[in-house]
Amino acid sequence: MSAFESATIQQQRQQFPYLDRYTYFNYGGQGSMPARALEAMYQAQLKMQEISPFSYAANDWMNQATAALRSLMADELGAHTDSISIVENTTIGCNIAMWGLDWHQDDRILITDCEHQGIIGTAQELQHRFAIDIDICPMLETVNGGDPVSVIRDAIQPNTRMLVISHILWNTGQVLPLPEIIELCRAHNILVMVDAAQSVGVLPLNLTELGADFYAFTGHKWWCGPAGIGGLYVRPEVRERLRPTFIGWRSVITNAQGQPTRFQPNSERYEVATSAVPLYAGLEAALNIHRSFGSGVERYKLICAQATNLWEQLKRLEPITCVRPTTPDSGLVAFQLASGQHKQLVQRLEHQGIYVRLLLNPNCVRACTHYLTTDAEIQHLVEAIDQLTQ
Amino acid sequence: MSAFESATIQQQRQQFPYLDRYTYFNYGGQGSMPARALEAMYQAQLKMQEISPFSYAANDWMNQATAALRSLMADELGAHTDSISIVENTTIGCNIAMWGLDWHQDDRILITDCEHQGIIGTAQELQHRFAIDIDICPMLETVNGGDPVSVIRDAIQPNTRMLVISHILWNTGQVLPLPEIIELCRAHNILVMVDAAQSVGVLPLNLTELGADFYAFTGHKWWCGPAGIGGLYVRPEVRERLRPTFIGWRSVITNAQGQPTRFQPNSERYEVATSAVPLYAGLEAALNIHRSFGSGVERYKLICAQATNLWEQLKRLEPITCVRPTTPDSGLVAFQLASGQHKQLVQRLEHQGIYVRLLLNPNCVRACTHYLTTDAEIQHLVEAIDQLTQ
Repeated sequence: MSAFESATIQQQRQQFPYLDRYTYFNYGGQGSMPARALEAMYQAQLKMQEISPFSYAANDWMNQATAALRSLMADELGAHTDSISIVENTTIGCNIAMWGLDWHQDDRILITDCEHQGIIGTAQELQHRFAIDIDICPMLETVNGGDPVSVIRDAIQPNTRMLVISHILWNTGQVLPLPEIIELCRAHNILVMVDAAQSVGVLPLNLTELGADFYAFTGHKWWCGPAGIGGLYVRPEVRERLRPTFIGWRSVITNAQGQPTRFQPNSERYEVATSAVPLYAGLEAALNIHRSFGSGVERYKLICAQATNLWEQLKRLEPITCVRPTTPDSGLVAFQLASGQHKQLVQRLEHQGIYVRLLLNPNCVRACTHYLTTDAEIQHLVEAIDQLTQ
Repeated sequence: MSAFESATIQQQRQQFPYLDRYTYFNYGGQGSMPARALEAMYQAQLKMQEISPFSYAANDWMNQATAALRSLMADELGAHTDSISIVENTTIGCNIAMWGLDWHQDDRILITDCEHQGIIGTAQELQHRFAIDIDICPMLETVNGGDPVSVIRDAIQPNTRMLVISHILWNTGQVLPLPEIIELCRAHNILVMVDAAQSVGVLPLNLTELGADFYAFTGHKWWCGPAGIGGLYVRPEVRERLRPTFIGWRSVITNAQGQPTRFQPNSERYEVATSAVPLYAGLEAALNIHRSFGSGVERYKLICAQATNLWEQLKRLEPITCVRPTTPDSGLVAFQLASGQHKQLVQRLEHQGIYVRLLLNPNCVRACTHYLTTDAEIQHLVEAIDQLTQ
């Protein structure tokens, strides 16, 4: 990292008051919040009380806060505002997309062997309810080379109706070639639902160009917002094919008697009822801080540079094997110990104030580098691992 | 109200810093929060950052916060801890209960004509997806006398599988005789799903004795907690009949490879993924403030006394007709103007810092009295209505 970059990042880190209290590599779990976000949420809670929590004025205030966050998310993701629903987290977004199809017996859902347990559990429940079939394709093996598009192609069957796939695999950090996968699926009339838990806040994105049908994400990981706010992008062209499942006053349009007559025409149809709107100010503040630092492309470049830095240093340690043999193209670096004592390592690092996480499939340790990550943090982590694995 | 009661309430109101800034009668929409709740949420947000937002320590902290709120909710509601799921709001709880049955074509769901639009929208979507039928029974007419149990009995059909009903009708404030309705439904093998948006924080409750199968509620109305936290009670005896619908890491038990193998054995199976756990501290603080003030029975007595006070004064105004001809047994007082200009009245009152709400069915104005409501507030509201309707 250049001296200029280093100075700029140090300056940016001043806005994140907790980053210097520990050595943090768990952005893929939850980000560390900027002071302005914490303050903005507190002020928004007070504001809502001040204007009276239930009133025409409060309703206007909530509508404005919601519109502002929706618009900011959309802008950051290269999507139309009308295509973004604000939901509680990535998993809720995935569930909305997976439950909203008109499933029939013998339909098939295709997932990879690297998906999160929430996805698997939801697919299993759809199987139970609608007698659909689940196909699981072997994506993990492409970590050592191989073509992810071929893996999908080989797994497609005549009844396959939806592919559920991560943009960045949460276990290995591999970035999947989504444009090619989407093209393949569209040719087979298969809807593509993307788990974007690890890609939003990492990759520079233009969802309109990307063309995924559904893209579910969260604000509390790489965006460093509060826990409890995420989003779902639904491609406008498929909106009429995705019915809302959980429904509340925000999903519907009512008549003069207050009876629901139809769904909201836009992405609001997937939103349900009363949410913690004062938290929106926190995510908005965090997003604005990232955006003022640099473009999505610039931030992604730094993330990869630091992941590569970490990956190269880890490779030099005798008892360590990096899960991926190739230079990282995301901020996730997974590695294994010869001893297999991964949980012990994670716990001992935490004891020293260094935060990484344990993964079970493959059994490994995952460290995440953000654009906020410094050379010194990486050195500190690598030295600690070196000492603990002597 | 006695001088002693009045003094005690004034003292309690000191904990709610915004209550004296306006004249508030919208507890049925959203409560006004105590200072300690606002402070507790802020401190919890900081705490989570301080211990590092994703770590074994943070996980322990979140588990403790979740267990503490669940236990407090359960204690307040007279329910086993294992029967309470923490969800985003009442509507989400209703959706979990309504979507979790194994619906078949020609099954029937029974709702009343006083249910919230979220319930109606969800029932309509179940009808669309599973070809079930919806019956709507005429409960509104019992506001002038008549037997709610007979209304339900007359509407039950051989295929009726679930009754969805409010404990307190959100429009008229009528308390329905739930024990008798539950007894009737159980005799017909009909599950009873209760919309408790207006009863939790108003009625003294013992859900174990009440015997409803599902009881969905929120913390942000009468409990005066933050928006975005509610709960769902599922009677332990019916848990195995109610499958989770939206599923995430909190719903499932995983094996050594991180694959979900089964649902959580308790109420956690209906919880999904990352939520705004720091807000739990706010609801906990609000609940403890209510509990230290008095028992559920004592608080309910005050709520009814003030509703009765308001109802009696409104009745004396020439252009006002109270929707209910009988003394209130809840904190909701609905009334109509001879002119029918309800929206105008609500807006004009808001302009004076007096908050009530408009309802569409029946078209009326609703004012809510809490145990925190003072005689002076009621007098202020009545005088303002009197002036505005001259």
